[in-house]
Amino acid sequence: MSTKKITAGISARHVHVTREHLDILFGEGYQLTVKKDLSQPGQFASNEQVDVVTEKGSFKGVRILGPERKNTQIEVSLSDAMKLGLKAPVRDSGDIKNSPGVKLVGPKGSVDLDEGAIVAMRHIHMTPADAAEFGVSDKEVVQVRCGGERGLIFDNVLIRVNEAFALEMHLDTDEGNAAMCKTGDSVELIKK
Amino acid sequence: MSTKKITAGISARHVHVTREHLDILFGEGYQLTVKKDLSQPGQFASNEQVDVVTEKGSFKGVRILGPERKNTQIEVSLSDAMKLGLKAPVRDSGDIKNSPGVKLVGPKGSVDLDEGAIVAMRHIHMTPADAAEFGVSDKEVVQVRCGGERGLIFDNVLIRVNEAFALEMHLDTDEGNAAMCKTGDSVELIKK
Repeated sequence: MSTKKITAGISARHVHVTREHLDILFGEGYQLTVKKDLSQPGQFASNEQVDVVTEKGSFKGVRILGPERKNTQIEVSLSDAMKLGLKAPVRDSGDIKNSPGVKLVGPKGSVDLDEGAIVAMRHIHMTPADAAEFGVSDKEVVQVRCGGERGLIFDNVLIRVNEAFALEMHLDTDEGNAAMCKTGDSVELIKK
Repeated sequence: MSTKKITAGISARHVHVTREHLDILFGEGYQLTVKKDLSQPGQFASNEQVDVVTEKGSFKGVRILGPERKNTQIEVSLSDAMKLGLKAPVRDSGDIKNSPGVKLVGPKGSVDLDEGAIVAMRHIHMTPADAAEFGVSDKEVVQVRCGGERGLIFDNVLIRVNEAFALEMHLDTDEGNAAMCKTGDSVELIKK
């Protein structure tokens, strides 16, 4: 099997928004502005931030990642979810069915969501060529080894294959800290 | 090898204090009072709390674990250390040499420490009889598997053997959340 190195990316809590919700939060026709391009082609951290509010707590200034999506989604770590008093499920991005809602507050308005808060399931983005090289396929579940003084092997890592993806493993902040793994560190795929 | 189950215990940030520092923080001759006995015999969560303060941040009301120890020590998660702006090393409990200091603030006084803040190295407490059953020895490093939807295998888990210990694995909150492992869950020792 390939020993090609995969780069880790640690995702802090963030929000994806629909066009409709962006209109409410920032004003009709508002366009997200690019603060920084992300590793995944076309994706960017915007300059725009919203507050995420629940009955139990809130986070000020949570960054919106662009471009707009077809569902508004809030990705938090498990420790974030606890602070917000949310039973957020561990899900693949986009799978928000029956997840808890939150209130988003922007400069021009607020949105009360019925669903949308998830803890992102750890996953590896790759192209079909990468998948062929590793001998894995879309939605396959693999292990990933992070080395170093706090090294560990993550079970249940989802493979996501798409021509538009760049080879990268995404972890949340709890996972990054538990493994003492930073954005840019190399990790190793282990086929189950 | 034994398949005896080991119970996980997730440690939130906490402080151990010397007799001398307890005198300063809570007043001469002050005695810690027991809020709750811990799994390790003789150890307890006290009702007493102090604030942990650095130039970059602070945590209010951090619990003191008793009884008093020969060195004052602050155990934080890696994410806690980041919030405090501390480069706290990953260490076995008691090994605080050249670790960063913090200020502790109690109701009667405060202490500026030169050292003492560490991220506890994940470890398993066990008796010599447990060690014999698992075929491991004091200071040996093993792996531990946590199961479930966010399962993972921790590398570099320290074995600590003492007649006074109860069989238990200690993780910090980052590690517990990354594995979705709660206090009381069972984990499995894997000899390297």
